[in-house]
Amino acid sequence: MLKTAGCVLCFLSFLLEPCFAQTLNATHESIARKLLEQGLTQPESYTMLSELCVNAPHRLSGYEDAQRAVQLTKKMMTDRGFVNVHLEKIMVPRWVRGKEEAYIVPAPSLKQKQSMRVQKLSVCALGGSIATPESGIDAEVVEVKTLDEARALGSRGKGKIVFFNRAFDPTKLNAFAAYGGAVDQRSRGAIVAAQVGAVAVLVRSMTGRPDDVPHTGAMNYVDTVKKIPAAAVSIEGAELLSASLARGQARVRLTLTCKTLPDVESANVVGEIAGSEKPNEIIVVGGHLDCWDKGQGAHDDGAGCMQAIEVVNLIKKIGIRPKRTIRAVMFMNEENGNRGGRGYPVAAERKGEKHVAALESDRGGFTPRGFTVAGDSSVQKKVLEWKPYFDLLDASRIEPGYGGVDIAPLLDTGVPGFGLYVDSHRYFDYHHSDNDTIDKVNPRELELGAIVEAMICYLISEEGL
Amino acid sequence: MLKTAGCVLCFLSFLLEPCFAQTLNATHESIARKLLEQGLTQPESYTMLSELCVNAPHRLSGYEDAQRAVQLTKKMMTDRGFVNVHLEKIMVPRWVRGKEEAYIVPAPSLKQKQSMRVQKLSVCALGGSIATPESGIDAEVVEVKTLDEARALGSRGKGKIVFFNRAFDPTKLNAFAAYGGAVDQRSRGAIVAAQVGAVAVLVRSMTGRPDDVPHTGAMNYVDTVKKIPAAAVSIEGAELLSASLARGQARVRLTLTCKTLPDVESANVVGEIAGSEKPNEIIVVGGHLDCWDKGQGAHDDGAGCMQAIEVVNLIKKIGIRPKRTIRAVMFMNEENGNRGGRGYPVAAERKGEKHVAALESDRGGFTPRGFTVAGDSSVQKKVLEWKPYFDLLDASRIEPGYGGVDIAPLLDTGVPGFGLYVDSHRYFDYHHSDNDTIDKVNPRELELGAIVEAMICYLISEEGL
Repeated sequence: MLKTAGCVLCFLSFLLEPCFAQTLNATHESIARKLLEQGLTQPESYTMLSELCVNAPHRLSGYEDAQRAVQLTKKMMTDRGFVNVHLEKIMVPRWVRGKEEAYIVPAPSLKQKQSMRVQKLSVCALGGSIATPESGIDAEVVEVKTLDEARALGSRGKGKIVFFNRAFDPTKLNAFAAYGGAVDQRSRGAIVAAQVGAVAVLVRSMTGRPDDVPHTGAMNYVDTVKKIPAAAVSIEGAELLSASLARGQARVRLTLTCKTLPDVESANVVGEIAGSEKPNEIIVVGGHLDCWDKGQGAHDDGAGCMQAIEVVNLIKKIGIRPKRTIRAVMFMNEENGNRGGRGYPVAAERKGEKHVAALESDRGGFTPRGFTVAGDSSVQKKVLEWKPYFDLLDASRIEPGYGGVDIAPLLDTGVPGFGLYVDSHRYFDYHHSDNDTIDKVNPRELELGAIVEAMICYLISEEGL
Repeated sequence: MLKTAGCVLCFLSFLLEPCFAQTLNATHESIARKLLEQGLTQPESYTMLSELCVNAPHRLSGYEDAQRAVQLTKKMMTDRGFVNVHLEKIMVPRWVRGKEEAYIVPAPSLKQKQSMRVQKLSVCALGGSIATPESGIDAEVVEVKTLDEARALGSRGKGKIVFFNRAFDPTKLNAFAAYGGAVDQRSRGAIVAAQVGAVAVLVRSMTGRPDDVPHTGAMNYVDTVKKIPAAAVSIEGAELLSASLARGQARVRLTLTCKTLPDVESANVVGEIAGSEKPNEIIVVGGHLDCWDKGQGAHDDGAGCMQAIEVVNLIKKIGIRPKRTIRAVMFMNEENGNRGGRGYPVAAERKGEKHVAALESDRGGFTPRGFTVAGDSSVQKKVLEWKPYFDLLDASRIEPGYGGVDIAPLLDTGVPGFGLYVDSHRYFDYHHSDNDTIDKVNPRELELGAIVEAMICYLISEEGL
């Protein structure tokens, strides 16, 4: 019975998409194998990433390390024989962190109780936050789980520090779904809290793994609402604060000295291998060169940048002369403005260029599983035909989905996009924190991502989309 | 053209196996979702693994920690309400490590050259090795890449330390294939070297990641060939030694005090949830409780053991009363004898029991990708029909393949077997070394493995094979 039904379904589904292994193009298959062999026997992505992480760990836009990273990646491309290596200037915001401290202090009524001593909280300013007064803010804390709960505080929010404490949903298999379900607290918490008269916000770090390391990230203000300081608190700190509140009222003393300085000049870094038949048709492969000023931005997104350079490098090393130009782009300022991503499509350099596709790796340098495709049905169909080549690379999960923040403005002009899809379970253990260091990156996992991206670039270059 | 060919192929392939998503059984689907929710919201595998790693890190057969691990896991099962919790006694070998030291010492002709100072090598005795004389062995070193090269040494091997230095093949996508391609040096190197008169062997550690940590593992002797001492050398040590040899002759002074003591009593640890309809039909899910006396045996194979306990625990917690009995087994002595695996099928306790399947997790507590199936074509076909449930768990790569060392003797009696298949890139970074500690385990990856195993057990319990 099932078999009969299956037969009809199978026949029908065939009309929509292939449901069986197709005959491989021998050339394409040999390229997949060559990329694998070259990448795994003489990988360069991890060595480059180590160099970036050690020499320019705090690559937040406008920081010295960001400028150092621009020069370093330009040199990496030049040293590897890329052509058209150049900087594309953009202006970037410059927010600097400064000092950050928080303590749980008992409410006056509880000061005599021994159990309510002053306790330090591990916090860090959220990116873009204003400072507290120099002497800090000392205020009662009120805990909420959602923006709606914060709104519902009404006048009870006045003068308080609103503490957003909604955890990642652990049942989300994809860690990005858990992040997506929690990040509104960080991105919009300060706006909503200010609307009910709060004086600051503390936000539970955007991670599912309990430790005492706070995770920073971008937060937003709007012109119509008073700006209040915002900091992330570690998971252990959040649990401690929540337990203190459960035992009675608790105050927090929060001091932040972060500030926003005038915009400064920075750049996207570009280099490529020129197409042999259609040099003006460009395939962009990129990541973002900036990162938060915590850890070393190893996974986010040094990994994606070094993979982009390695894509062009691998293609050169195995002797492919691609039909179309394959271009590595280090986008600047993804974390707090996306000026690089927005500037790229409208740069003077774009004259006469036609972009046929853009790839991004910004989900960490973990084992690649496949990629998400942002494009119309004809693009989706075309890419699915390539699945067998990605079976060879053990990364053939191909699904419609997001490309990435950096390439989003380019995709908005109608260019198809690709986001490298990786094993996601570890990403938010490290993301935007002191945990995001080179020792958390496995060299093979990183290189395999570059190999998968190189194969996508090669196929697009040869066959178009 | 391709479409027409595809149509025929598709139609034919349909007769062999389903090539499309089938209708899900609503109950089975809901169980998959419940296991996911229970496991990810209230995971116990990582907490249990931490307890095991901290309290009984060096669980080599016959060591005190192994006995402690037996009692600890018995208690874990009892505390969680398992039934028929008991120990099944076996005798195990008792090899103990002792002191291990090696130095590169310059050959007499080079002693005056400053570049050839005495240099320490990071080594560890291979499991089962005999000791060197108390004063150590001081001998010239000859480097080979293969057993054949060692054989070809002939009389040039006499009195030498043979240094097996063949690296993992980095082009193998599956790390187990790289291991399989190199491990003959460790397992049989001492036999082959002794046949050409060598006095000891040094073996490049079985890992692809360069660091200074040696990786131990089992080695073999045969009665007809003289026993000589055998040690693993770290990758950095191997590179150093090879470079020293390239600059001229080099000697190594090796001291090992390991020894084999008389067999002692130990046990497999067993506990279960009884089947409601066919209690005498058993599904075994296991791992091996012993590990090498390096690190904490976190991935190898504390992970597999704790996952096995968590399987039964999850099934109990979501309120399933399975038709068949699901039994967790902690096998003792996989690493150097497999007495537990061999003892299990022939134990007195097996009277009246019928085993319908056996599962093992012994590839590390990494992200599960699916499982390998050891069974005839009807078993393979049946299991493939369950693929949609494993799609829900993002672990639906189902392939014919190996079950595991512990369950192999049971499988030899005709029982179908399953080996949890995981992302393998990191495993040999840690395997059999001081690197294999609890901090290398990601709690979600570990728990997901237990969830996948629980789903297999549930389906077998309900539907048989």
